Amino acid sequence: MSDKDQHKVWRLGADIDTDQLAPGAYMKLGIDGIAPHCLEVVRPEFAAAVRQGDVIAAGPNFGIGSSREQAAGALVQLGVRAVIAPSFSGLFFRNAFNLGLLLLTCKEAEQLNEGEQVTLDLQQMQVVTANGRQLACDPIPDFLLDMVQAGGLMNTLRRRLQQSPSTRAAS
Amino acid sequence: MSDKDQHKVWRLGADIDTDQLAPGAYMKLGIDGIAPHCLEVVRPEFAAAVRQGDVIAAGPNFGIGSSREQAAGALVQLGVRAVIAPSFSGLFFRNAFNLGLLLLTCKEAEQLNEGEQVTLDLQQMQVVTANGRQLACDPIPDFLLDMVQAGGLMNTLRRRLQQSPSTRAAS
Repeated sequence: MSDKDQHKVWRLGADIDTDQLAPGAYMKLGIDGIAPHCLEVVRPEFAAAVRQGDVIAAGPNFGIGSSREQAAGALVQLGVRAVIAPSFSGLFFRNAFNLGLLLLTCKEAEQLNEGEQVTLDLQQMQVVTANGRQLACDPIPDFLLDMVQAGGLMNTLRRRLQQSPSTRAAS
Repeated sequence: MSDKDQHKVWRLGADIDTDQLAPGAYMKLGIDGIAPHCLEVVRPEFAAAVRQGDVIAAGPNFGIGSSREQAAGALVQLGVRAVIAPSFSGLFFRNAFNLGLLLLTCKEAEQLNEGEQVTLDLQQMQVVTANGRQLACDPIPDFLLDMVQAGGLMNTLRRRLQQSPSTRAAS
């Protein structure tokens, strides 16, 4: 899985929680209704201005709070390519990969700047800045990278069932 | 899922990594060979002295490092009931629940003491100390608690297939 595209950085702080990502007031509206309010309390312009392929660089504990899956779903809906942070909530980490959202655990994530362009080198597991600086990320097993590329867990399972229909009848 | 049992606390520090949990030197031996060396660099007596149902209370970033699933597997093998910590590596969190190991995200985990007895109240999501102090834990979705109780993801899937064999042939 390679990715030589340039990605614009949105720079956020520490402890971004699930209520900031998927505000409780809009939870009944479904993901189409939630996504336009994603991160509005910390960055009111975010949902309208974020572009397909942009990435978020943030401080520690990204995705803490409730277990609501829509927190990751809203970022997927808005086309966010990846979130880069020193640490994530365990539940958010699980939900994000299940929904096809790439999370990069990177000690130096906070050294990235608002608006700068980066590339993601998933073979070497690093974020590369425009001036060539390489920020190392923690390893991610291939099956999780494959799941992100397939668009999440449900798409992965669907693809596997299509590839080997005979397994459905196996005991 | 209720649990009124008393659990003895093993108190560890911050940044316990996967190589401390499943030392690289023993990875070829399989989980039976790895588990006796679990945590030996930080607590040489741990693997021999830990008892079924004991819990670990630790500092932030428990389970960082590699993606090796045996880090959680060794704790399961040794009968550890739960790990209580302020934060976990995202990958460790995913692996642990898949293997049936309960992780409780608890800001006050480090206030627990070596050797004290606690109960786990999973309805109220709190750790209760012998003198009645209640330490709040982050919520965990029911399906993950069910997965822990079933002994992990593979057991859950096996159970579901057994319960509804007709779904295997559905299109």
